[in-house]
Amino acid sequence: MTTPFHVPAFSEILSGLIPERLARQLAFVLEIDRLKAVFRKTTLTDGSRRESSAEHSWQLALMALVLAEYASKHGSEEIDPLRVVTMLLVHDLVEIDAGDAFAFDAAANHGKEEREQAAAERVFGLLPEDQAETFRAAWEEFEARETAESRFANALDRLQPLLHNYATRGGTWTEFGITSEKIFWRMAPIKDGAPELHEVVEKVVEIALREGWIQKG
Amino acid sequence: MTTPFHVPAFSEILSGLIPERLARQLAFVLEIDRLKAVFRKTTLTDGSRRESSAEHSWQLALMALVLAEYASKHGSEEIDPLRVVTMLLVHDLVEIDAGDAFAFDAAANHGKEEREQAAAERVFGLLPEDQAETFRAAWEEFEARETAESRFANALDRLQPLLHNYATRGGTWTEFGITSEKIFWRMAPIKDGAPELHEVVEKVVEIALREGWIQKG
Repeated sequence: MTTPFHVPAFSEILSGLIPERLARQLAFVLEIDRLKAVFRKTTLTDGSRRESSAEHSWQLALMALVLAEYASKHGSEEIDPLRVVTMLLVHDLVEIDAGDAFAFDAAANHGKEEREQAAAERVFGLLPEDQAETFRAAWEEFEARETAESRFANALDRLQPLLHNYATRGGTWTEFGITSEKIFWRMAPIKDGAPELHEVVEKVVEIALREGWIQKG
Repeated sequence: MTTPFHVPAFSEILSGLIPERLARQLAFVLEIDRLKAVFRKTTLTDGSRRESSAEHSWQLALMALVLAEYASKHGSEEIDPLRVVTMLLVHDLVEIDAGDAFAFDAAANHGKEEREQAAAERVFGLLPEDQAETFRAAWEEFEARETAESRFANALDRLQPLLHNYATRGGTWTEFGITSEKIFWRMAPIKDGAPELHEVVEKVVEIALREGWIQKG
């Protein structure tokens, strides 16, 4: 997606006129706009169209605030909601270059890690060095699923399409013939990051089977 | 926008199967999806289409993290980034019922406050009572522009379309014949919430005038 008004021109034109640090930050702010042009398989709840990864990221960030009480803790310590939200706001930025790979499509997921690492290098690299490190670290934390914040963020990233597939009576599960076992495999991180929310997975899969939206196995 | 699968059905169906509090929270999570169907006048930076209010809200939340260092402080105290992000994530939710009113369209803005108050009542009211109050308070704080966090959040809400109009060589300013004076009036809150960013407004308007994208006066 290149146009005559492609984003890097912004920092080039303005970099002599405003402080260099600010010019780099604004170049990043304009570059991330391109996540609005990346579409996921999941549709809106009215089924009218697929959602952009930017829209998905917004919904997840707000879900993190609303559902925070279900997050697994670090021992007795509460999770840090700002870290969860930061991770969710940046977790899909690499798709600007690497595209969205549908979770159940093995071919689309081949070589995904290398593509995403290169994308992270370029996209976060637009920022001033200190911020490039901070935001890239948030993305790496999300990917690694090791901290309680990351586990909770990942749980929400799995739960949101399940809710949409419920609202659209099967949604992408029906469209792509995804079975209950594959859904449970995909939703397993919810047990880790927000165990009480896994109950929702069980109920929704039960309803989806009963209604014939999905098949067993 | 009603469909046979309209969102409240979620809490109705699931409310006997999962805890009532969680059912209300999930009904809210699905309801907010409808903000993806509200479109603003501002386009993507490649000019290909208008952006949804959900996409806009995501971009602003991430802008808040990247540009936090430019926020006006409370005296010597730093602002709370989580409050800014929370405000930005919810600031447009009332548009689900009330629609997006283009800032420069006086007719569209007539009666806006009443419509938005009613929308806030309904949309935030889907949540459990304690959360309805918390998130509605964040929206009211954004609207009131009294705290440092709110002023910064509002500054970003003005800056983002300016950046996009720059990237699209005039964008909605050219499309709707908005003059430099009206732009400066609209951007004034940036002086308040993030004074260093107002320099960007001045440079961009200067370029827009020189390039003939907008007219003076």
